[in-house]
Order: sequence, then C-alpha cells, then structure tokens
Amino acid sequence: MPQGVPSPGSIPRDGLTTRQRRNQPVLAVNTGPGKGKSTAAFGMAMRAWNQGFSIGVFQFVKSAKWRVGEEAALRALGDAYVATGAGGPVEWHKMGEGWSWIRKTGDDADHAAAARDGWAEISRRLQSEQHRFYVLDEFTYPLKWGWIDTAEVVETLVNRPGNQHVVITGRDAPAELIEVADLVTEMTKIKHPMDAGRKGQRGIEW
Amino acid sequence: MPQGVPSPGSIPRDGLTTRQRRNQPVLAVNTGPGKGKSTAAFGMAMRAWNQGFSIGVFQFVKSAKWRVGEEAALRALGDAYVATGAGGPVEWHKMGEGWSWIRKTGDDADHAAAARDGWAEISRRLQSEQHRFYVLDEFTYPLKWGWIDTAEVVETLVNRPGNQHVVITGRDAPAELIEVADLVTEMTKIKHPMDAGRKGQRGIEW
Repeated sequence: MPQGVPSPGSIPRDGLTTRQRRNQPVLAVNTGPGKGKSTAAFGMAMRAWNQGFSIGVFQFVKSAKWRVGEEAALRALGDAYVATGAGGPVEWHKMGEGWSWIRKTGDDADHAAAARDGWAEISRRLQSEQHRFYVLDEFTYPLKWGWIDTAEVVETLVNRPGNQHVVITGRDAPAELIEVADLVTEMTKIKHPMDAGRKGQRGIEW
Repeated sequence: MPQGVPSPGSIPRDGLTTRQRRNQPVLAVNTGPGKGKSTAAFGMAMRAWNQGFSIGVFQFVKSAKWRVGEEAALRALGDAYVATGAGGPVEWHKMGEGWSWIRKTGDDADHAAAARDGWAEISRRLQSEQHRFYVLDEFTYPLKWGWIDTAEVVETLVNRPGNQHVVITGRDAPAELIEVADLVTEMTKIKHPMDAGRKGQRGIEW
C-alpha cells in the first residue's frame, strides 16, 4: 500500500532537496519474537541489489540450518552482477564457520571473540564505506549476551560516514539501539505451525 | 535462532514420517500495520527458489512504486534458473497493469473485476498444482473491500491439492483466513523514518 505523502506541515525544514532526503542513510532494526525478521532483511537486500548497492551480509550466531536459501539466492544475484552487470555485488560472511576474511578454518571455539572480530571488521568497513547495504543478522544476541559493547556499536553506527544502510535483526534489540534506529519493526508471532507439533518445512523454514 | 525442537510429547501421532511432516503445505499470512510483510514474503520466495520450487507472484492493488527491487531480483533468479538450472522458475504477475496472462494492455478500470480475475486464475493454478510457492501480495485488501469472497478463498485454500505453499500479505487479514492459516505473523511499526518527515529511501523502500 502506498505509505501516504507527509502533509506539508510535516516536511522538515532541513534545507535538503527531495533527492537529498531520498538518499539518507537508514539504520533499521527488525526485532520481536515472530518470524520474518531476517527474511524481511534479506528481502530488503533484494531491493538494495536492484539499486546496484554493494551488499555485505554478516551472520552472527550459528544456526542449525543457517539461511541456506537466502544465501544461495543472494549469491546467485551477486553472480548475476558479475556476469551481466545487473544489480550490485554481494558478500556473505558467517561467524560460526569462521569469518571468511580470516585465514583459518573450522569452528571458532571462542564465540565471544569471534563475534567481536566480526564487529571489528564491520566497523572498519563502515569507516571505509566498503558497502552501501549491510545486513547484521542476529546481531542483537552478541549485544544481549555482552559479547560486544552496545554503547560502542551505537556510537559507531550513529557516526558512520556517507550513505550506508544498516539492517540489524534478532530478538530483544537493546533499547539504546532502538533509540538511534530510523526504522524499527517488531515481528509478533500470532500462530506458528510448530505450535501444533509440525516440523519445519523445506522451502519455508530454510 | 534455532526454533527449538518440539518436546517428544508434542510430536503428533499422525502416522507420518519426519520427511512427510517436513513436506506439508503451508499457508502463511503476514499482516499488521508495520513494514516487512511483503518483504518477508519475498525473502521466503528466495528460500523456495533455492529448493527448486516453481514460484508464482501475484500482486493485487496497484502500488505507486510496485516492488521494483524484489521483482527485478526474483526475475534475475528466474533467469538464473533458465540459464544454469539453479533454483526454480519464477513468474510475476501484476493486477494494476493488467494481468499478464490476459491479452490486453494498460490499466484496468474495474479493479474489483480485475481482482476477481486474478483470484480465478490463482484458483485454477492451485487446482492444477502449477506452482509450489505462491505469493499473493496485498491480497487482504480485495478481501477486505468485498471484491473477492473470503469464504470461497478460504475453502479453495483449505482444499488445495498436493503440496503448495501460499503466502498472503496485507493489513487487516480477515479472521476466517487467520483461522485456517498455519503461520501468521503480525508486523508492528515501532518507529518509522516517515514519522519524522523523512522521505522513502531508494534501496530501502523500493
């Protein structure tokens, strides 16, 4: 549905042109106990890809099934960019199998250190404006668990240079993060098939 | 996050194997006033694509910007299927520009009739099991407006043959639809940049 046009009174007197106001960096948080937090973030990545944005996905927390479907699809879109120039480039990094920019293999036993390594790299990339669109998937958990300092994350995000969009997913987003986010959506479970003892469905859950 | 394994007591005594229970048709509804309803549905379509499912997207209601990013990305994935055999085929149909299976051009003045034509086609496809994964985007609105009979939709969905997943998006999903859905998620807006008079962002909103 069209989101509606703000009434003239609500147009900020910030001296920016409409074009400028259409190109402001967004910090989005998808939180809450329901489904669709990550899925919506990866759906947003499709839009970003279509705009030719460089996309960086960073998965925190090792999930049993990861996000094989989204990863395969986004990598295919990255391949399409390389092959045809359509869309933008895509990078996908996972913590639980060892961050791909670090030259080591296998699982990292110290998850807290691995999470900090991941954030340090993201922080560097934000400083150098390496991507235009970042997905920090399940990033709320290392914050919640105290593995990464929320205050430092908030400061880095608020002061990130240029026009870099960041989408953070996960339950229980810290209040300090929500405070500085531009777009916060809570996904609430109304009904879930697993409540009825159903198994996760191929092509739906992964 | 892992969704957790149901406790042994919650495993249904339905005589099905785990494999069979992993391949049950899902009817999902993404509703509520927040962002991410459609975005999450298109994110699910990425998973379905990766499983090699045939995907059919049907957009009800003409949006100012449509979903150009998601459409371009999903079409690129459909192209990847044709070129390399990866994933599955993708079809994308829009009501507001005239359904693409109907040989006519331009805008349809009678939106209610166009919505009914769309549903009739979806109903036929469900009967013939033409797709494995359907997105009925913003389909709640023609139901809410009485353009399409909700009782008939519910009956058709409940009795659809085979293993066809259907995801319906839009605000104010009718109670009868929620009643028969397997997975219902409500997206709630906590904070939105347009509240502060900010413009929709390229690569975020479309």
